[in-house]
Amino acid sequence: MRSEGGYRGLALRVLKKHGVNVGDEIKVVTEKGEYVGILMPRSELEDDEHIVIKLENGYNIGIKISEKTVVEKIGEVRPRKPLKREAVAQRETLPLVCLIGTGGTIASRIDYKTGAVYPSFDVGYLLRMEPRLSEVARIEARELFNVFSEDMLPKHWSAIAEEVAREIKRGARGVVIAHGTDTMGYTAAALSFALQNLPVPVVLVGAQRSSDRPSTDAVQNLYHAVLVAAMSDIAEVGVLMHESTSDTSSIFIRGVRTRKMHTSRRDAFKSVNFPPLARVVGNRIQPLVEDYNRRGSRSLVLKNRFSNEVALVKFYPGMDPSIFEFLADRGYKGVVLEGTGLGHVGSYLFDGIKRLIESGALVVMTSQCLNGRVNMNVYRTGRILLSLGVVPGEDILPETAYVKLCWIFGQTSDLEKAKELFTTNIAGEFCERSYFSVYGW
Amino acid sequence: MRSEGGYRGLALRVLKKHGVNVGDEIKVVTEKGEYVGILMPRSELEDDEHIVIKLENGYNIGIKISEKTVVEKIGEVRPRKPLKREAVAQRETLPLVCLIGTGGTIASRIDYKTGAVYPSFDVGYLLRMEPRLSEVARIEARELFNVFSEDMLPKHWSAIAEEVAREIKRGARGVVIAHGTDTMGYTAAALSFALQNLPVPVVLVGAQRSSDRPSTDAVQNLYHAVLVAAMSDIAEVGVLMHESTSDTSSIFIRGVRTRKMHTSRRDAFKSVNFPPLARVVGNRIQPLVEDYNRRGSRSLVLKNRFSNEVALVKFYPGMDPSIFEFLADRGYKGVVLEGTGLGHVGSYLFDGIKRLIESGALVVMTSQCLNGRVNMNVYRTGRILLSLGVVPGEDILPETAYVKLCWIFGQTSDLEKAKELFTTNIAGEFCERSYFSVYGW
Repeated sequence: MRSEGGYRGLALRVLKKHGVNVGDEIKVVTEKGEYVGILMPRSELEDDEHIVIKLENGYNIGIKISEKTVVEKIGEVRPRKPLKREAVAQRETLPLVCLIGTGGTIASRIDYKTGAVYPSFDVGYLLRMEPRLSEVARIEARELFNVFSEDMLPKHWSAIAEEVAREIKRGARGVVIAHGTDTMGYTAAALSFALQNLPVPVVLVGAQRSSDRPSTDAVQNLYHAVLVAAMSDIAEVGVLMHESTSDTSSIFIRGVRTRKMHTSRRDAFKSVNFPPLARVVGNRIQPLVEDYNRRGSRSLVLKNRFSNEVALVKFYPGMDPSIFEFLADRGYKGVVLEGTGLGHVGSYLFDGIKRLIESGALVVMTSQCLNGRVNMNVYRTGRILLSLGVVPGEDILPETAYVKLCWIFGQTSDLEKAKELFTTNIAGEFCERSYFSVYGW
Repeated sequence: MRSEGGYRGLALRVLKKHGVNVGDEIKVVTEKGEYVGILMPRSELEDDEHIVIKLENGYNIGIKISEKTVVEKIGEVRPRKPLKREAVAQRETLPLVCLIGTGGTIASRIDYKTGAVYPSFDVGYLLRMEPRLSEVARIEARELFNVFSEDMLPKHWSAIAEEVAREIKRGARGVVIAHGTDTMGYTAAALSFALQNLPVPVVLVGAQRSSDRPSTDAVQNLYHAVLVAAMSDIAEVGVLMHESTSDTSSIFIRGVRTRKMHTSRRDAFKSVNFPPLARVVGNRIQPLVEDYNRRGSRSLVLKNRFSNEVALVKFYPGMDPSIFEFLADRGYKGVVLEGTGLGHVGSYLFDGIKRLIESGALVVMTSQCLNGRVNMNVYRTGRILLSLGVVPGEDILPETAYVKLCWIFGQTSDLEKAKELFTTNIAGEFCERSYFSVYGW
């Protein structure tokens, strides 16, 4: 029996018996207790008496198993497709780009016989779809899991970050992650915080129309994503999508600045409060800013733990203050407020916010305007919120602030340390001057 | 003692004794009980033994008073400034425009001696600030209240709507409402639903910089707002603000399509999923659409009751499903979901949403993309949400959907009737075809 995801011997027998694959969400029942998480791959050098799963909290644990251990697949992840490198000859002299499938429109085709959607993440299909891919990179594709992007959780961010780190350590010159578009901005922000001291580009890519439709944006997006991963010197986490509705150009947006701003258009993704990092036209990559992290031989630092004890709360006129009691009672560690204008909420919420802060939560302010900068010193409301201990979020997106707090409380439980981390620019989420030109409609 | 807000005799004595004015939020303690609300003006033809207040729920009640009645001012509203018509001669042949102050940057100046912000809502000041005002309209200004826009509540929407209706019945050819910018979009949507069969323009106007700063946008915005109110044939509720950062033009945006999209820029207000109704350049009004409600002699229908039992909930990856239990337990009548993409939330929330709907709440779906249209038939997630009873919000803004549900449950408690009202286009909040051109960045 051949090895699968690094598993062999006893471990492989138990996994096969119960029909689970690497990337599946599983429940493991042993004599010592039950464990739930995502089955992770192992090094083939390790023993065959343990399997490794990633828990909700981002920790990996090794579980000792026996022939009697019961492993149950839960959730709806699909098995990783085997690599099909034989389909098209690839030039070994080209840079290696690892393509990781996580689900979404770009990673699926419709089987017109059965009507079912199935993953299309094998290299043969990809290269047939866009032959130019084989001119820019040597591609290895694998499907980590297949999850609708609205079902992505902090634990998935954690698993993707780990997989990216593994591929970079294996020598990938760039990594491309195919992802559903709904929450691609959130995942891009998460990877931006989790993958520090990044030596190569990490490019998230999606499609608004699936690859078997004539109007698909999957082909151009994927080609440009691989191009940026293989060739550009922008060693950052970013999102690559169409720049306009025509197939003329794509933009590569810094992960923490990415927001989906249209439900259906191919140019749905916008860079907020900062220019896109680069434009891609044909096979040319044009950097649009000077201030980015260059490709280098540095060592990646993986910090991929995320907390689930964070909430994002959008303010609106007449909001019920008891929401803050609810959050305080449930022991939330961090709460992102999405206020109005320069960072305001109604004065009828002050008591609730005070109580939430007194319960030990870090409360930060962002603006539902999305564009521009929070400034809580202009009006009395802002100054009162500051005096209560609300931390201003400067020009950060509310969604990025949420992801950042999840990440911060994966790193520390100390409130003062958390506050310091939040106000420190880590991945370009804060910017000294405002990029006014990056706004229009 | 002269009449104040229509009060005289006994009522006026009691109000004066306790130092309260029309527009103040007050507590009235009588032998029969306590009442809290906003003191409303009365017709001078009515008796002097009652005062009228607008309760939280939008109802006006008359309270019989005696010399012993205690009236206490609560909150922070400021007295209405007396009209100062004598300051500048106004031509009686020009159309009457009523200008209602509700607070915000446009209605305030800084007293450079004391540092205090004070309302500047007297006609004399306004006409000195922009002499062209006296060439287009005869203006009557009054301050209804002075509330930071983040403190506006459904009860304020209700009071503003009532005041507008009063002025239209008095013969105003157009109404201008000066409003803080933070929640001006919400109020504009509220007035769009509350003021039906509108015969004249109702123009909300604000400023991003106060009128005593050299960079103020207050002067142009106010002039163009009065121009639209007096001269245009667009009998709709809308918001008038700068079109760009220069002082070249303004746009008049349909109330239900208005969103503040920048924290500080003068061109912060955008029209979402629909073109602006008109552009104003100099003293010329250029309609940008053909499909609008024309000025006419029809009778206004005032439907200004709003419910407080509605919530707006923004989805994010990892959201705690127990928020829906919280909402169900508190008996919310309506909940607007701000989902991702075409109208999705994580499958881990399905049970919670099901329970909320079973508790009797109307749950509607909008998209945090803001632009584009919800379509819940494309992916399995959307179809499951539809099967649970979630009502798709088409191309409505999440904020407008929230205001609409507040308004609907002010009109009816019947769930089926509410559903029917929600899916009916009332004020241009739904649009058959998508206005793709109204999107950019």
